[in-house]
Amino acid sequence: MSHDFILLASGSPRRKQLFEQFLIPHQSVPARKKEPNRFSDETPSEFACRAALWKAHDVSLRYPDHSILGADTIVSIDDLILGKPSSCEEAAQMLQLLSGREHTVITGLALLNASRDPVIRFAETIVVFRNLLPAEIEWYSTCGDGLDKAGGYGIQSWGGAFVREIHGDWYNVVGLPIPLLIDMFTEFAPNFWPPQTN
Amino acid sequence: MSHDFILLASGSPRRKQLFEQFLIPHQSVPARKKEPNRFSDETPSEFACRAALWKAHDVSLRYPDHSILGADTIVSIDDLILGKPSSCEEAAQMLQLLSGREHTVITGLALLNASRDPVIRFAETIVVFRNLLPAEIEWYSTCGDGLDKAGGYGIQSWGGAFVREIHGDWYNVVGLPIPLLIDMFTEFAPNFWPPQTN
Repeated sequence: MSHDFILLASGSPRRKQLFEQFLIPHQSVPARKKEPNRFSDETPSEFACRAALWKAHDVSLRYPDHSILGADTIVSIDDLILGKPSSCEEAAQMLQLLSGREHTVITGLALLNASRDPVIRFAETIVVFRNLLPAEIEWYSTCGDGLDKAGGYGIQSWGGAFVREIHGDWYNVVGLPIPLLIDMFTEFAPNFWPPQTN
Repeated sequence: MSHDFILLASGSPRRKQLFEQFLIPHQSVPARKKEPNRFSDETPSEFACRAALWKAHDVSLRYPDHSILGADTIVSIDDLILGKPSSCEEAAQMLQLLSGREHTVITGLALLNASRDPVIRFAETIVVFRNLLPAEIEWYSTCGDGLDKAGGYGIQSWGGAFVREIHGDWYNVVGLPIPLLIDMFTEFAPNFWPPQTN
């Protein structure tokens, strides 16, 4: 491997913060291309993986000899995929749809390196919402916190108050499945884990 | 209720940070008494509840007309209760015990108010650890992050890398079960939830 850091093909400040929290050497290089749309015959996890590969591939054209990680997080309920809400009204509709029920958060990860085939995996976490109060939905959907997040809420900020319980990896819901990433590093890029902390 | 904030009978900076994150008006007043020891015939959840009540009661002697929340978080495995490690060596032993297995994190909550009987509840979350690498245990047990935390790890900091998955409330593992707290506020102290955000 020709570099001792990973290129994170994402503009998400949350993913960058998680790379910092877990001491993984990195640089952020957001993809330039518009994100893909879902094909009608594609499952949610297939779509998340393809979107992650799409982002990583876009960055690899500019940095062909680097290790690159693409990631894409989606919220799935009733075979719908919820992206980022386009308005406060849409955010409120999403929260109303999620209230009192469980949904699935899926993150696709794609690890590219010039010396081997792409490694593509995904993580799924079940999230169970409380029955939300109208006052909670009204306030949160207008406060702005959920507007840049799939499903219209941030589990790591005030939106965590909506969540009764989860089954799976919590960091996946934030946007980066840490145990899956560690598995992929351990198997395919062992110089990235554990971090060199001395 | 005579006050529009809650007294948090805890010196934990993590609990205080969570009260701030969820916009719950509060003041921190740590208990002065030494924490109790477990009785031999007490289950882990009974002990966590008694310890939470113990802290709240200690603060209520000084502030008898306030709403007071006591909380105590423990890690339980094999009917052992893991507290805060007393040394780096003990932290490493705890992590080795938790490696590759599941354990239970329990937080007892006790809500006191002069106008009614104490309300005492607990939350349980199952935490499943990865098989930890010796290098991970060695580094983390000496870095200091886990030394002030039950079980010797912080799920919200680098110690989150140890966790494969959870079943239940993630904030409970941090030290304050948010959905349980919201239930208790809604039922017994409705002026605290939802927060007055206008």
